[in-house]
Amino acid sequence: MRRMTARPANAHQARLLRLLRDHGPNSRAQLGDQVDLSRSKLAVEVDRLLETGLVVADGLAASRGGRRSHNVRLAPALRFLGIDIGATSVDVAVTNAELEVLGHLTQPMDVREGPVAVFEQALALAGKLKASGVAEGFDGAGIGVPGPVRFPEGVPVAPPIMPGWDGFPVREALSQELGCPVMVDNDVNLMAVGEQHAGVARTVQDFLFVKIGTGIGCGIVVGGEVYRGTTGSAGDIGHIQVEPDGRPCACGNRGCLEAYFGGASLARDAEAAAREGTSPELAARRAAAGTLGAPEVAAAAAAGDPVALDLIRTGGSRTGQVIAGLVSFFNPGLVVIGGGVTGLGHTLLAAIRTQVYRQSLPLATNNLPIVLGELGQAAGVTGAARLISDHLFSPA
Amino acid sequence: MRRMTARPANAHQARLLRLLRDHGPNSRAQLGDQVDLSRSKLAVEVDRLLETGLVVADGLAASRGGRRSHNVRLAPALRFLGIDIGATSVDVAVTNAELEVLGHLTQPMDVREGPVAVFEQALALAGKLKASGVAEGFDGAGIGVPGPVRFPEGVPVAPPIMPGWDGFPVREALSQELGCPVMVDNDVNLMAVGEQHAGVARTVQDFLFVKIGTGIGCGIVVGGEVYRGTTGSAGDIGHIQVEPDGRPCACGNRGCLEAYFGGASLARDAEAAAREGTSPELAARRAAAGTLGAPEVAAAAAAGDPVALDLIRTGGSRTGQVIAGLVSFFNPGLVVIGGGVTGLGHTLLAAIRTQVYRQSLPLATNNLPIVLGELGQAAGVTGAARLISDHLFSPA
Repeated sequence: MRRMTARPANAHQARLLRLLRDHGPNSRAQLGDQVDLSRSKLAVEVDRLLETGLVVADGLAASRGGRRSHNVRLAPALRFLGIDIGATSVDVAVTNAELEVLGHLTQPMDVREGPVAVFEQALALAGKLKASGVAEGFDGAGIGVPGPVRFPEGVPVAPPIMPGWDGFPVREALSQELGCPVMVDNDVNLMAVGEQHAGVARTVQDFLFVKIGTGIGCGIVVGGEVYRGTTGSAGDIGHIQVEPDGRPCACGNRGCLEAYFGGASLARDAEAAAREGTSPELAARRAAAGTLGAPEVAAAAAAGDPVALDLIRTGGSRTGQVIAGLVSFFNPGLVVIGGGVTGLGHTLLAAIRTQVYRQSLPLATNNLPIVLGELGQAAGVTGAARLISDHLFSPA
Repeated sequence: MRRMTARPANAHQARLLRLLRDHGPNSRAQLGDQVDLSRSKLAVEVDRLLETGLVVADGLAASRGGRRSHNVRLAPALRFLGIDIGATSVDVAVTNAELEVLGHLTQPMDVREGPVAVFEQALALAGKLKASGVAEGFDGAGIGVPGPVRFPEGVPVAPPIMPGWDGFPVREALSQELGCPVMVDNDVNLMAVGEQHAGVARTVQDFLFVKIGTGIGCGIVVGGEVYRGTTGSAGDIGHIQVEPDGRPCACGNRGCLEAYFGGASLARDAEAAAREGTSPELAARRAAAGTLGAPEVAAAAAAGDPVALDLIRTGGSRTGQVIAGLVSFFNPGLVVIGGGVTGLGHTLLAAIRTQVYRQSLPLATNNLPIVLGELGQAAGVTGAARLISDHLFSPA
């Protein structure tokens, strides 16, 4: 099919498209209740959207008395591509215009191989999704990368764990490859947006999304919008100091959070416990799996291994120590914990909660839920689809 | 005179009033360049504002070719009252409609005496300013208090250093006393707004204002607007942990920033140094002044006393440790340091800068100025006047 070429001509049309995206098919009458437009002006804007093909008629609505109103919906053929590049894996998903995930593939990947190799894999996954029949093409793509992004240009800047990515024109290059508009953001920001769109943060205006993956990062949402900071590095909490003159960190400083927790630190500490014989349980799992990471530590903890439990508890406590400070500073309405390491489950969450509730001021924590994300691995790709749809559903 | 009773009737009028407040008298033609209004609609709105008396004619503007345009300005008789209640002092100032300070009085005060006693003093100072002839009455008042505020209602909530203030209806009570509209905010938020309006932060959209007074707090400005958090306690950084299991703090926790620095901690540590004989210099100043606080420590440091210098350096370093984390998290475009303890001057600023530049990520600090505020003690009252003028210059 011909891909989406039209864009909303004005702010009213953009608002109508977002309403149809977020709430699904709707009657003209009900749309009229939600936008500040006269009946006749609304009719004009909806008719124009119908002409562009972005919106299609969808039968008659249930009667509200008087003449029955017509339903409209976003074009059913619209397809968004969401790509979530982590440090060690890539997720690719296709959504419809309402951002429902129609297909989702994931595979291990090393971001250090550089943008060319990584995008080759991502595009191959996108091709597989196309071949599976969920999409004939893509109307737009959103992409998350595990580092700071100069947002308007879609270019990673000085990404510490991404050698070869600094200044790479991700947006431009992928737009050319895919033949559709592309938007790029930090992966944690997109996970926050995903949870806001379809997950646990749907009704919250100001919240933090803390991703504990290989590293630790934070998405900040203020008044419903992602806050990216002056140079796009806001939320880079992995190198906040938790111990003056503490453990050396890969960044060159000492005592950073990531020197104590996150997937990389956890794997290192678990390896040490296996090697040094303090945990026969972890040593056995290392022998069986050939490696030790969050899943093996989680399994060992579930089997009652005290060393594994202690690794999770102290790591959660260190993370909670940083979150406590952020809660005092930012006074959010919700803290969401996500990322691969959340497989550590309730022990981790309990350690984080204990530290935050103990250390932050009561006024900031009285009504503060600290919860796991709802979307799991789909948070990033959902946020990516939302990002590009926000862009396309804006006045040209 | 009759006080301001009119309010702008719509968003265009509100915008015009704020332009005249922020940029002073202006010609109709130049105002037209700055608002998105046709010449005829602009004329209608300006004429309506002239009818209300909020705006007055101010002679003919310089020619730009063609017919000369008329100047307009805000009514010269408009007066705003700014009240800044700190932990140990109260500042009261009167401004004109352009928020220029026409008179400013300050006196020592103890916030723990409770709202009734404190407002008695503040109102007495306001009366003195009236008597001095700078104002016949007040068209509105803004008030800052040293604790969290439920903003829309103007009521302090659970203020830790303000016994007797919890739930006191500051806005309502003062509005009745003064016979004019009143708005209330946290004092540090207002200092941030003051520096944004007339000080060092005029051109910055996202910045932090760190007040080091008796305690330590932070004003957060996001996209030009104060961010107050979900329950109004955002910026409460004095109890962020800087040392796990560190010094006991008055809040009941251990290792909080305020256990190490701020006016109260500094006075306690200086007293100890004087008492224990480690600093004869501080002991001598204590004997002379009867007390030891930031001014005495500053003077001792200026005289080369190593103990005083060390108190400032380690305190600044602890403060820098917290700011470093906030910079990584928030990625601001500017950090402003203000409050009474800034009398400690360059030694303090250098210690803070050293810690932040060493500990935060380079991407967040590359272009990050860390500077002292420009307005000194006028920051809070200027911000207070700005707060009430924002309220009055909004559509009714």
